[in-house]
Amino acid sequence: MYSVNVRDHFMIAHSFRGEVFGPAQRLHGATYVVDLELRRPELDADGVVVDIGLATEALRNVLGELNFRNLDDESAFTGRNTTTEFMARVIFDRVAARIAAGGLGAHASGLTSMRVCLHESHVAWAAYEHSL
Amino acid sequence: MYSVNVRDHFMIAHSFRGEVFGPAQRLHGATYVVDLELRRPELDADGVVVDIGLATEALRNVLGELNFRNLDDESAFTGRNTTTEFMARVIFDRVAARIAAGGLGAHASGLTSMRVCLHESHVAWAAYEHSL
Amino acid sequence: MYSVNVRDHFMIAHSFRGEVFGPAQRLHGATYVVDLELRRPELDADGVVVDIGLATEALRNVLGELNFRNLDDESAFTGRNTTTEFMARVIFDRVAARIAAGGLGAHASGLTSMRVCLHESHVAWAAYEHSL
Amino acid sequence: MYSVNVRDHFMIAHSFRGEVFGPAQRLHGATYVVDLELRRPELDADGVVVDIGLATEALRNVLGELNFRNLDDESAFTGRNTTTEFMARVIFDRVAARIAAGGLGAHASGLTSMRVCLHESHVAWAAYEHSL
Amino acid sequence: MYSVNVRDHFMIAHSFRGEVFGPAQRLHGATYVVDLELRRPELDADGVVVDIGLATEALRNVLGELNFRNLDDESAFTGRNTTTEFMARVIFDRVAARIAAGGLGAHASGLTSMRVCLHESHVAWAAYEHSL
Amino acid sequence: MYSVNVRDHFMIAHSFRGEVFGPAQRLHGATYVVDLELRRPELDADGVVVDIGLATEALRNVLGELNFRNLDDESAFTGRNTTTEFMARVIFDRVAARIAAGGLGAHASGLTSMRVCLHESHVAWAAYEHSL
Repeated sequence: MYSVNVRDHFMIAHSFRGEVFGPAQRLHGATYVVDLELRRPELDADGVVVDIGLATEALRNVLGELNFRNLDDESAFTGRNTTTEFMARVIFDRVAARIAAGGLGAHASGLTSMRVCLHESHVAWAAYEHSL
Repeated sequence: MYSVNVRDHFMIAHSFRGEVFGPAQRLHGATYVVDLELRRPELDADGVVVDIGLATEALRNVLGELNFRNLDDESAFTGRNTTTEFMARVIFDRVAARIAAGGLGAHASGLTSMRVCLHESHVAWAAYEHSL
Repeated sequence: MYSVNVRDHFMIAHSFRGEVFGPAQRLHGATYVVDLELRRPELDADGVVVDIGLATEALRNVLGELNFRNLDDESAFTGRNTTTEFMARVIFDRVAARIAAGGLGAHASGLTSMRVCLHESHVAWAAYEHSL
Repeated sequence: MYSVNVRDHFMIAHSFRGEVFGPAQRLHGATYVVDLELRRPELDADGVVVDIGLATEALRNVLGELNFRNLDDESAFTGRNTTTEFMARVIFDRVAARIAAGGLGAHASGLTSMRVCLHESHVAWAAYEHSL
Repeated sequence: MYSVNVRDHFMIAHSFRGEVFGPAQRLHGATYVVDLELRRPELDADGVVVDIGLATEALRNVLGELNFRNLDDESAFTGRNTTTEFMARVIFDRVAARIAAGGLGAHASGLTSMRVCLHESHVAWAAYEHSL
Repeated sequence: MYSVNVRDHFMIAHSFRGEVFGPAQRLHGATYVVDLELRRPELDADGVVVDIGLATEALRNVLGELNFRNLDDESAFTGRNTTTEFMARVIFDRVAARIAAGGLGAHASGLTSMRVCLHESHVAWAAYEHSL
């Protein structure tokens, strides 16, 4: 299995509901450094997993919809805790939709799985991975 | 599959037996920077993989039993080489026991697998992973 | 010159005022991974720059006053942009006050300078350094 | 499953053919920081996944065949784009051949899979993994 | 003293002349991950060292003149070894010229020194720093 | 000012004397990842700060004298606490002696200062720097 990873980041405010979160129930924020990993069993005719330029652009665009925002105000997340693992899934779904719509090029149809990992500090990260 | 990772470290002395270890047969030591990764297929009702506070505390407690010690003197490891990969398994088993005992909270019953990775330098690490 | 560095982090929400900040004028947030570096020309009688346990505790306490907060609501920062470089200075001043008050031990009087560096992402950081 | 990873690097020149590569069609170059991960379900009698000294030496030798070269001039790669993912496979195959030839010691027959990851910058990497 | 750092990278081919370089006399290449650090004694009226957006853009533009090129073919470097430390100085001079020309904004006149650091691998880097 | 840095590591056992060290008074150990930074105001005729091959070899040799040892048994350190900052100085002095003896080549006479930094974990490091 081959894989390619690109990295970018976004910065948001949010708060959590539930006693389990302790002081993180207050409005605070995070920098998320995001790794997007794309996988396929064989390389395409150009010898790549994916057009890395298009993958980088797709990640930047998906993160641009979230960057410099208060996630508590985003209607897409009403009633949900925007935890690191939840946001990994959100980004996974949004990138997957762009792949399905052809945004990573025709060859991206050969991609078989994807992993999105959000680093929230030097000591914690969360990820979501699934088949495509 | 979702995953969450927390990081901590411990510092120990030890020596190895066997010609394969060369100069590492002498008493020496290591800093191990430890990544504990917990996985489950769906998030719990709070939107998390695990209570990250409890996971961090469990890791700190497990590493506290090993930190600032000479592993050659620990009865638990008599007759064993406390290699990086062996210690990854030791930590896996001890954290798994805490999960089974409820130490990571009731929701931790949804965890399906775990990975423990010990970084011993900027050029080497070892890991153990298994289902829970 | 000797130096010792300890690392910790905090997570906050804030917004900026001024066109130069573009979309960062919106309420957003950041994880700041903080390096606290302490310097002195000669080691003390124990062979250290500072009691690293006390330095770690002092940094944790200073960051604890900021962690999981919306800096826009903190009276200490009214009318100021809480930029990364500004916050580096805030943390410098608060740690310096603890040193002056004896919080890092009597030997800390030998410290001659300090540097506080805040990493806000994998591509940007800011710092403040000064004599003590 | 246990795993051990060793890290090294090599520096090469190359160019790509195909419009998808844009300016990377020009002769340029890269530093590849290489992670070689070896896996097996149980440790050997010494308590290790593999003789880490032999694994490090095997990786250094394989990378030494590529280091400080223009890959466009290497007959082994004629007509191929030496992309990061392609080179991950090349290194996988060359290390696998050394394992099969006994270069990592007799106990290396217990290895069941391997992963080769090439970091090309702070924001991109590619990997190839397969059973042995 | 305050400082702000932004990071980017570029990928080039080159060769060196002189026995001291050994196999690096052959045509090879490198990824350089570049840290640009800007310093000033006091923050400007917005509370920043520099407009980080303009600094990031300036660095990207300077690196864009070098990226995906064979430095042996660049007339600017004829007769010179384009070592990591030499390239750090080249980038320093080019960014300094942009600052002098107003490319980092009017407030950038308050900058007093700059450091350019090029990371060529996980084990080596070189830098150039000077007053402005 | 130009600088060049090379990195290597060593692994040792030791213990500390003095209440300030708490549990670190027990025999334990550490991995030290070492950065050796060499500085000079102008490049030599080859366009380098130092022969990086000789610098790497000198660092490896100095660390080789310490690697895989119990520092409590080394006569050179009798009666001293081998703290991270103390060891940074030890390595500084030993590399400086090699420079003075010509071990980094004749051009190394142009070096004006040096810094040795020992990373003991992902959250702590210590350094010693001085003129040459």
